[in-house]
Amino acid sequence: MKRVLVDMDGVLADIYPHMVAYEYKESGIKVDIQSLTGRLEEEAFPSFKQFIQGKRFFRTAPVMKDSVEGLKYLNGKYDVMIVSSATEFPDSLIEKYDWLGEHFPFISWKQMIFCGSKQGIGGDIMIDDHIKNLNVFEGQKILFTQPHNLQVNDEKLERVYSWKEITSIL
Amino acid sequence: MKRVLVDMDGVLADIYPHMVAYEYKESGIKVDIQSLTGRLEEEAFPSFKQFIQGKRFFRTAPVMKDSVEGLKYLNGKYDVMIVSSATEFPDSLIEKYDWLGEHFPFISWKQMIFCGSKQGIGGDIMIDDHIKNLNVFEGQKILFTQPHNLQVNDEKLERVYSWKEITSIL
Repeated sequence: MKRVLVDMDGVLADIYPHMVAYEYKESGIKVDIQSLTGRLEEEAFPSFKQFIQGKRFFRTAPVMKDSVEGLKYLNGKYDVMIVSSATEFPDSLIEKYDWLGEHFPFISWKQMIFCGSKQGIGGDIMIDDHIKNLNVFEGQKILFTQPHNLQVNDEKLERVYSWKEITSIL
Repeated sequence: MKRVLVDMDGVLADIYPHMVAYEYKESGIKVDIQSLTGRLEEEAFPSFKQFIQGKRFFRTAPVMKDSVEGLKYLNGKYDVMIVSSATEFPDSLIEKYDWLGEHFPFISWKQMIFCGSKQGIGGDIMIDDHIKNLNVFEGQKILFTQPHNLQVNDEKLERVYSWKEITSIL
């Protein structure tokens, strides 16, 4: 059975509208998602560090459209592992664990990997929105579209725009 | 640079005397370490589930003899990753993170992987006391001696009894 590595932020968690809302709450600045093309989160949101290091940011993230059904489908067909960068913001460890338990209760603790770097995490297919993660992965690379990666043009990456598209490919 | 995967419980954390102390506190039973040969932790300690699921068990674990100097040595020579089973007991996530920060401050968040299963975590060398982890690893396998693995006899595993021995090999 092929192993699929699935990212959380920007793939299962719809982190962009969440960051826009947090930024507005933190600083009063209304960030326009259209203006974020090609810019990493830490460049695009002036209060990024404050809200990402604060409590509850990850715990309260909205779920990506169609991701529950999509992940359920993958989970029946593949060896699914959720791989999430979490150790940089240690409060996110339990928040991400609890968030998965709430929204994706069919994912067991055996299917979770919380790390700093994704280098060396092996699998056959990786679904991620960050090219830094896909670039160190050896298998099939699926790039989940987010504003920061809109300008990426790499034939080794398969770009998808939605979970419906993921389930039509895999 | 070769990548070395280092386990926590039973390798960096001296978990056996810690479990003996917890068992005595929990149930009044004095477990003799000599009697534990070949038995997994959950078989050997009647209160294992209670204390492993409770708070502070991992946070207060003693440090394995010579492991600070040993890991510092490896960290200067190899690409060291700490790989620890943690998601089964989610309170252990932050406890293990904090414990590493206290005792091994030279290990960064980029070098931590907290998982359920170690299958698929790639590297060149793995140091672990559990054969279930070494058996699914593809590289050089170093078995750190603990009572539960004393009867293991497998020529594909290199058995060590101490951190001094690890640093003499690697």
